[in-house]
Amino acid sequence: MSTFRGLQQPELSRKLSRLIKNENSAISAHESAGRERAAIAAALSEWGESTEDDAVSDISDKLGVMLAEMGEQEDIFAQNLEDYRGVLKHIRNMEASVQPSRDQRQKVTDEIAKLKYKDPTSTRLTTLEHELVRAEAQNLVAEAQLSNTTRTKLKEAFDLHTAAVIERAEKQIILARHARRLLNFIDDSPVVPGDTRKAYEHEMDARQVLEDTEADLRAWEPSVEPIPSSSVEAPTRVNHHAQVAEEEHDEESVTHATSGVTVGNAVPSSSKQVEEAVA
Amino acid sequence: MSTFRGLQQPELSRKLSRLIKNENSAISAHESAGRERAAIAAALSEWGESTEDDAVSDISDKLGVMLAEMGEQEDIFAQNLEDYRGVLKHIRNMEASVQPSRDQRQKVTDEIAKLKYKDPTSTRLTTLEHELVRAEAQNLVAEAQLSNTTRTKLKEAFDLHTAAVIERAEKQIILARHARRLLNFIDDSPVVPGDTRKAYEHEMDARQVLEDTEADLRAWEPSVEPIPSSSVEAPTRVNHHAQVAEEEHDEESVTHATSGVTVGNAVPSSSKQVEEAVA
Repeated sequence: MSTFRGLQQPELSRKLSRLIKNENSAISAHESAGRERAAIAAALSEWGESTEDDAVSDISDKLGVMLAEMGEQEDIFAQNLEDYRGVLKHIRNMEASVQPSRDQRQKVTDEIAKLKYKDPTSTRLTTLEHELVRAEAQNLVAEAQLSNTTRTKLKEAFDLHTAAVIERAEKQIILARHARRLLNFIDDSPVVPGDTRKAYEHEMDARQVLEDTEADLRAWEPSVEPIPSSSVEAPTRVNHHAQVAEEEHDEESVTHATSGVTVGNAVPSSSKQVEEAVA
Repeated sequence: MSTFRGLQQPELSRKLSRLIKNENSAISAHESAGRERAAIAAALSEWGESTEDDAVSDISDKLGVMLAEMGEQEDIFAQNLEDYRGVLKHIRNMEASVQPSRDQRQKVTDEIAKLKYKDPTSTRLTTLEHELVRAEAQNLVAEAQLSNTTRTKLKEAFDLHTAAVIERAEKQIILARHARRLLNFIDDSPVVPGDTRKAYEHEMDARQVLEDTEADLRAWEPSVEPIPSSSVEAPTRVNHHAQVAEEEHDEESVTHATSGVTVGNAVPSSSKQVEEAVA
């Protein structure tokens, strides 16, 4: 059914419609990766407890906290991609709304040509030629709107997309680097059968690692340079002779900041896992 | 069927078996995200060409190159997680092989208790007590092996995992930051209907961005501190009285470096997309 819906798109918006659909699958894949990572985090902590080895139990529990937060970041990434996907839809909607205007101009042009051949003295020719002037004027506006929207929204979309990539990457680096510190608290010098291991003494150190991680995540701020835009967010207009239907623009339905700086639910929700573990 | 197989695992290795199965789903999700990203990259380039706008066409084509490389990095990440998953299997296999030794010790202990109650003068008691000493010795070795393998392989596994997270993140940051430079080459100042845009003049600049990206990816080196391990990679042995079956250890089947430094097909394959685009 959804394939059929894709095919129903006007020619002009078909390629972008397909891309938007692909993006939906990519987003689902990241969501699924985030969910699985959370499940693995829980399984790791449970397994560690079952080993009845204090060091393994404590470190695997705290690694679990880190993994859960990585999963959360993967999910936030998916949500941010959803925003970028929403911006691409503006271009697609504009493309879809420009198609009838192109079609109309073509239709009138064809009619005039046909009539000139069949009945060159027809009075309808004058009417059609007036109609063509109107259709051309309308199409001129439509094409300018399409060009403006395409350029502005393409910049905005990939501003969001790349900022989301960087946010996920920087936060997951914080998590992974601190997780590596935890690994050093596992003494893996071999024991001889019958020997008991030295008591595990790194519980406070490991706790400190979680606190450091939380602090670093809280302190994280986007470091991306804003992408300047010269767009004026109002619809492209022209003198008095062209009335353009506005309802297709869908400008109000999604409001986006044009700069990457405001992207993402930056700190509070993201450090939830770590906070809960420390609390 | 695969659920059933999970249930067939000895009690001791059941939790880790489940985690390893979850990890398989997570890996598939990242593979799928990588595949979708590559498809989106191709669709973006195609769409850009169809707009017949020189700036949009050139930039969307080069953004496509960046996205394809991000997808490639997602796929390399999935491959690296596969390595980490392989290391976890060592622990699971060791757990599975230790279970019979625990069971055997328990079985002999139970038999002795039963016999002492039913027939306290039985000569079989002496035989069973000798058997118990052997079973305990064997189990002592098995438990030491389990402890050594668990600690060493847990460190090794998450060394690989976290190094993979950092590699993907650092390389995708390189890609995203350069991709943002490309966006600035799109002039989105609004055009008035009927006006033509200034000619696109950033083709060489955009090309340079791809070359810079390629250079940065080539120059990338892992920055993680190695995780020191005190393990001796040989199986844990004890005097003469305990012979331990080695075939279950599966030590040879996967060989892993203990340090994260060697992780991943770092540069050559990863910058393939960008190289091809520049070539």
